[in-house]
Amino acid sequence: MDKQFDVIIIGAGPAGLTAAIYASRANLSTAVVEEGAPGGKLVKTYEIENYPGIKKIAGVDLAIELMEHGLSFGAQLESGSLESLEKDGEDFVVTLTGGRKLKGRAVIVATGTKEKELDLPEAKRFTGRGISYCAVCDGAFYRNQDVVVIGGGNSALEESLYLTSLVNKVYIVIRRDQFRAEAGVVDKVLANDKIEVIYKHLPESLVIEDDKITGIMLKSVEDGSLKKVACTGIFPYIGADPSTAFLDKSLLDERGYLLVKADMSTSQPGIYGAGDVCQKDLRQVVTATNDGAIAANSVVKYLRNK
Amino acid sequence: MDKQFDVIIIGAGPAGLTAAIYASRANLSTAVVEEGAPGGKLVKTYEIENYPGIKKIAGVDLAIELMEHGLSFGAQLESGSLESLEKDGEDFVVTLTGGRKLKGRAVIVATGTKEKELDLPEAKRFTGRGISYCAVCDGAFYRNQDVVVIGGGNSALEESLYLTSLVNKVYIVIRRDQFRAEAGVVDKVLANDKIEVIYKHLPESLVIEDDKITGIMLKSVEDGSLKKVACTGIFPYIGADPSTAFLDKSLLDERGYLLVKADMSTSQPGIYGAGDVCQKDLRQVVTATNDGAIAANSVVKYLRNK
Repeated sequence: MDKQFDVIIIGAGPAGLTAAIYASRANLSTAVVEEGAPGGKLVKTYEIENYPGIKKIAGVDLAIELMEHGLSFGAQLESGSLESLEKDGEDFVVTLTGGRKLKGRAVIVATGTKEKELDLPEAKRFTGRGISYCAVCDGAFYRNQDVVVIGGGNSALEESLYLTSLVNKVYIVIRRDQFRAEAGVVDKVLANDKIEVIYKHLPESLVIEDDKITGIMLKSVEDGSLKKVACTGIFPYIGADPSTAFLDKSLLDERGYLLVKADMSTSQPGIYGAGDVCQKDLRQVVTATNDGAIAANSVVKYLRNK
Repeated sequence: MDKQFDVIIIGAGPAGLTAAIYASRANLSTAVVEEGAPGGKLVKTYEIENYPGIKKIAGVDLAIELMEHGLSFGAQLESGSLESLEKDGEDFVVTLTGGRKLKGRAVIVATGTKEKELDLPEAKRFTGRGISYCAVCDGAFYRNQDVVVIGGGNSALEESLYLTSLVNKVYIVIRRDQFRAEAGVVDKVLANDKIEVIYKHLPESLVIEDDKITGIMLKSVEDGSLKKVACTGIFPYIGADPSTAFLDKSLLDERGYLLVKADMSTSQPGIYGAGDVCQKDLRQVVTATNDGAIAANSVVKYLRNK
């Protein structure tokens, strides 16, 4: 028989695990579905120093704390990959790979985003220590150092401007001879004397010394020549995709992010969103946990009204 | 000479201290103004078990952690009571009692709310251990016990319904013979067999045994007769007031709460809000910290655009 829950939370990152705390403390029977290690992007983050109340903690340690906390009031972790989410009368059926089914009266989608990763040898190993996908999170670790931002879209340029308040110099590497970003932010980038733009180049390889990143090799898209840029940090902003393939397109914006109201409800009654998967401006642990709390609180009200 | 800052944060609760983390990590010179002990309502809370990542912590201990964290990147704590907030050209001047002045290019208002407190002998001493002003925060501590809610407005009734999912029985004490709350929520309260309404009574005194609350004495508003209700928890919902007297009325809703957009900006450029002082649905540590991070991030963008 299918397992029955009041609420099924899809994704065990900071948003999903906080929703689990709030839902299970309100006595809802709660499942948290996760295909990998609980903790979401935290698992890939070397160190966090901006989660309020915890001055400095390894990403993986905060992930463990959140997992233990999230499951401590009775929420059940259901390991497995999501195959589908379907309506079943007033309820929802979550099918996991292998055919296992969970039934829920409400669903909180907290599946996060998947960064497009820098596709270079060794890049995976240095993610979180030299390669970062979040300037707001990690910029302060590179104070007064030289960093490279890869990408020419809005977020690459926004994050570059953010970094100029912290680091010594920001090199922006783009493939073309102009930016994809909006004119306003481009103007600011071009006017900023801490930023140097390297046009028509692509990342070619990491420069690693003593098991640390000390630079990056770039390749000209015109003549294939190589050029070394010394840096201690590399911020690739080559895009991220929300993990929403299993959701109806009508719930999403044009980039695939989940559209939510202030109470974290979506356009489909019973489906709520939380965390990075939602359309929003600032994606941080502290904003994800907020969403999880609000989503769970809204589910409590929703189920009480049914 | 006046002290000059990029941003002045008014209030050192979870919202203000998180704003301090985010502002100072972005290299803004940051002041945090606080008239009492840093930590906001946490200082009055016995124990917190729903701040994600920290399974259980004394309110005062979380307050200390947040304060140390908030000041660890260079933000300055400025102790003193706010006298006034005034525009000075493009900048703002915060005057503290005694005449001390701080100048800021932007302001984050994180002054919170002040609960109307239960006006009974010993009530102050039992706040956080028997008397709670937050069912979502503390309801789980009274699982399967009997509790008393005081008040007949929307929040008293909403919180009573919330409590029924946890506790054995909820007594609601109201002064009149009908509720002030909306009909929908009143219907739900009257239909809920875990709730008993005690009409036309007012709280008279706490019943204390072995230094614990074991009940409350109620007085009839009709004949003055006394009646004892056994309970271990008392939740007064007799109102709370946002601390916004120093702000222009045009920034506030009709109850005095600060009106903010999704990026925490207000209708006055350069003034941002964060935490309980804002008009919002769920007031929790985890939602306050979220607001602080977003407000500080918005100030970074605002000052960059100036």
